[in-house]
Amino acid sequence: MKRVKVSNNVIRRLPRYLRKLDELQENGINRISSFELGQQLGLTPSQIRQDFSCFGEFGQQGYGYNVSGLREQIASILGMDRGYRAILVGVGNIGHALMDNFSFADCGVELAAAFDIKESLIGTEFKGVPILAEAELEGYLKNNDIALAVLCVPKEVAVNVTKILTENGIEAIWNFTNMELTEPNSPIIVENVHFSDSLLSLSYFVSERMDERTAEASRNEK
Amino acid sequence: MKRVKVSNNVIRRLPRYLRKLDELQENGINRISSFELGQQLGLTPSQIRQDFSCFGEFGQQGYGYNVSGLREQIASILGMDRGYRAILVGVGNIGHALMDNFSFADCGVELAAAFDIKESLIGTEFKGVPILAEAELEGYLKNNDIALAVLCVPKEVAVNVTKILTENGIEAIWNFTNMELTEPNSPIIVENVHFSDSLLSLSYFVSERMDERTAEASRNEK
Repeated sequence: MKRVKVSNNVIRRLPRYLRKLDELQENGINRISSFELGQQLGLTPSQIRQDFSCFGEFGQQGYGYNVSGLREQIASILGMDRGYRAILVGVGNIGHALMDNFSFADCGVELAAAFDIKESLIGTEFKGVPILAEAELEGYLKNNDIALAVLCVPKEVAVNVTKILTENGIEAIWNFTNMELTEPNSPIIVENVHFSDSLLSLSYFVSERMDERTAEASRNEK
Repeated sequence: MKRVKVSNNVIRRLPRYLRKLDELQENGINRISSFELGQQLGLTPSQIRQDFSCFGEFGQQGYGYNVSGLREQIASILGMDRGYRAILVGVGNIGHALMDNFSFADCGVELAAAFDIKESLIGTEFKGVPILAEAELEGYLKNNDIALAVLCVPKEVAVNVTKILTENGIEAIWNFTNMELTEPNSPIIVENVHFSDSLLSLSYFVSERMDERTAEASRNEK
């Protein structure tokens, strides 16, 4: 695939497009205009056309997008057809919740193994994924082709585990530890999942609305 | 607080600023320039000044920002000082993980109660938060001042629970169900936590890098 540098905002919208297209397919819709797609996503048609134009021509003027074709192309742009394999380190609450409820396969990723230090977990399997001893992590990475690591360990050990991961061929870390793992210019790719960022944005939007209401009420009193 | 409409991108950066400022405070740093702050966050100084200018004047030209003062102001903009109360519905893996590991208090939010249908959970407490029967949800909301709901129920019941929440005064839903809960123009504020969006972005960045490497290797062969 030819690659141009695409802005972060566009990249962040691709998974949203994918979800919407999946939903359309489920509802038996085969074709959609950029206008209609925009309405359903709260985007303008021109923004949608511009986003897709980063990756080539997907639609036909006046004819709309073929839903399943567009879905395939976006999935491919996202690397979902590359067969990435992942490991998960730290089978605590959040690690366990991910193994139990999150479909790695739906993202085109195979969860190959999980690692923990807890004796009662080591040697067991959960939903078909073996749980191994954290002491085996380094050896496992040397002997297996693993691109991604899901990091769910306690804060205190996050930096040490990250070191093992980066020194043994991991390309990218999906980081649930709430720790900034790397310096801004580090070669490893880190995607931080910060629950607090999400809740604080929500808190902002609620505050904004409450202030609007208060302002309106005081206007009405006058 | 005077409010102007602020772009979504700016709002999404506010929690990142907050985290960075917390980190600086922990490291005993009291003052920072927009240049230095930008370097640490991968942003330009002018972008930072522009972001803050949406909310008034925070720094002093040539003197930098007072770390704790700026931290307080951003926290206030985010509504962290408004004493929002939240309930959590669905104490499964992810709900449990949030109650166990996520600090609502650090976001200025009090988790007042949790709700589930599981008999073995109802009537118990977890980390000081009472777990009540989902049948009590409606009554509870009528009798308590709750702004936020954390939705961790299974997909199948998400829409029904959302209906109860919105009809009983909930302002905003922090949505972990992987379901689009509302139409684009619904009055309720929804913050979706889509783990897959995050993993797919990561997959994109890894693919981009691998393509760059392949391209470089083929250039070197020529």
